[in-house]
Amino acid sequence: MSDVTPRAVVVLAHPEPDASFNAHLARLTARTLVERGYEVETSDLYATGFDPLEAPEHYAVRHDPDCFRPQTEQRHAADAGRAPDDVQAEIDKLDRADLLVLQYPMWWYQPPAILKGWLDRVLTYGGTYTSRMRYDRGRYRGRRALLSVTTGGPQETFAYNGRNGDIDLLLWPMCFSLYFVGYAVLPPFVAFGVESGVLYSDADAVRARLAGHEAALVERLRTIEATEPMAFSGWEDWDEDGRLIPGAPGHTQFMRARP
Amino acid sequence: MSDVTPRAVVVLAHPEPDASFNAHLARLTARTLVERGYEVETSDLYATGFDPLEAPEHYAVRHDPDCFRPQTEQRHAADAGRAPDDVQAEIDKLDRADLLVLQYPMWWYQPPAILKGWLDRVLTYGGTYTSRMRYDRGRYRGRRALLSVTTGGPQETFAYNGRNGDIDLLLWPMCFSLYFVGYAVLPPFVAFGVESGVLYSDADAVRARLAGHEAALVERLRTIEATEPMAFSGWEDWDEDGRLIPGAPGHTQFMRARP
Repeated sequence: MSDVTPRAVVVLAHPEPDASFNAHLARLTARTLVERGYEVETSDLYATGFDPLEAPEHYAVRHDPDCFRPQTEQRHAADAGRAPDDVQAEIDKLDRADLLVLQYPMWWYQPPAILKGWLDRVLTYGGTYTSRMRYDRGRYRGRRALLSVTTGGPQETFAYNGRNGDIDLLLWPMCFSLYFVGYAVLPPFVAFGVESGVLYSDADAVRARLAGHEAALVERLRTIEATEPMAFSGWEDWDEDGRLIPGAPGHTQFMRARP
Repeated sequence: MSDVTPRAVVVLAHPEPDASFNAHLARLTARTLVERGYEVETSDLYATGFDPLEAPEHYAVRHDPDCFRPQTEQRHAADAGRAPDDVQAEIDKLDRADLLVLQYPMWWYQPPAILKGWLDRVLTYGGTYTSRMRYDRGRYRGRRALLSVTTGGPQETFAYNGRNGDIDLLLWPMCFSLYFVGYAVLPPFVAFGVESGVLYSDADAVRARLAGHEAALVERLRTIEATEPMAFSGWEDWDEDGRLIPGAPGHTQFMRARP
C-alpha cells in the first residue's frame, strides 16, 4: 500500500437492498476495504434508481436528430462536456477509483438488466473509450477490477462438462468489457449455489456455504493488490484485421476454444 | 407448412424506432414471415416502454415481504395467476408463437439492458420453467427461436483468434437461455460491421454490406422450418451432479472449450 489513500467503488446490482446475500457481500467488501485503508464509494443501482436504458431522451442536444445512434450521441455529448448527469457521476467515481468491484447475481448467465444498462450508459464512447483509447491503452489502465458474482446453481454444474457450462466462458463478456476500457481484470470471485441453496439445502448447509463464501471473498480482498490479473491480448498482438499475430499471446479463454 | 397458420413473435430491442438497421431488420423479418403465411406479433420493447427491472414493486402480494428473492416471488405470483400484466402479455405471445425472433444490437458483447430485462422478467420461474420443466422438457419444446444480432465490429474480429473473440461463445448465454425454456435454438444470424460501417466505410460499401445482410436474413427466414437447430445436451445426458455422463453428447460450444 502506498502513502496515497487508495480508493474503491463497489457497484451493487440486486433488487433486495437489505436481506440479499449480494447486498451483504457488497457491505462486506466495503467494510473489508475500509479496514485495509481504502476510501470506498458505493453505487447501489437499484437504491439510487439508476436508469439502465440508453435512449434518445438522455440527450437534449443531438448530433443527429433523425437517427439515434448510441455511440454517435455518446461521443457528441462527451466532446461537448454534456454527458447525462447520472452517467457523469458514475464516470467520476471510476476516474477516482483504483479498484472497481461489480457485485451481482448471475441471471440467465449474464448480469441483471440494471447492471447491463450501467455498462451500456456509463462506459461511453468518448467518455471512457475511443477507437485508440482501448484495451492496454484504455482509460483505466493501471486500475483493477473484480467481478463478485453469485449463482443459483451449484459449482459442479458450471464446469465445461456441466449443465450450465464453463463459468470462465460465461463471465468472459463482462471481464473483456472491463479490459476494453483498460482495467487489469482480476479472476472473478464466484459464490456458487446461493439461490438454489435456499430452496434445496437444509439451513445449516446453507449457512455453512454462505460463511465459506464470505471468508473466501475477504481473503481475496486482503490480497487484491498482489493478485495476478487475467491475461489478455493487446494492441501489439493483433494485425490490421484484428486477428492475433501468429505467436502472440491469445486471450486465455478464447484460445481454449480454438476449433 | 401445415394447414394451421404458423405464428411468430419478433422482439426488437433498439432505441431508434425508425431509422436503425435493427428496426429495419425487424420489419423485414415480419414482412418476410407474413409473406410466407405466418401471423406475426411484434414486441418493440423501447416503443412500448417495457420495464426491464425485476423489482419488488411488480409484486403486490409477496410470498416473503422481508426479503425479495426474484425466483420465489415469480413462482408465487405465477402459481396464484398474478404475474405482472406486462409480463403475462409477453408470456401469452410466447405461448402462441411457433417461432421467436430476438432482434438486437450486441452491446458490450451482450444484449442491450432492455432485452436482458425481458429475459429477467418474462422468463419466469413458475411461468415459463420449473426445476423439472427445463431444457428438452421445457415449456417451449417444439418451438423455434432465432437470435438476429448486429455487431459494430467486423466479422474478422469475432473469430476465436480475433480481437472480440468467438461469436458463438459470446452468443452462447443467450442461446442457452432460450434452450433452458425448451426452444429449439437455430444458429444465430449475425450482421457484422453495422455500427462501425457507418463510421469507417464509405457510403457505397456500407450500403452493399447492409444489403447483403438483408438478403442473407431473408434467405434464413425462407428456410427456417428446415434449419437444423443447435445441438444441446439434455436431461438424459447429465448425472445427478449436472455433469455430462461419459459418452453423452456435450454442448457443442462448451465441449470445444474442454481444457
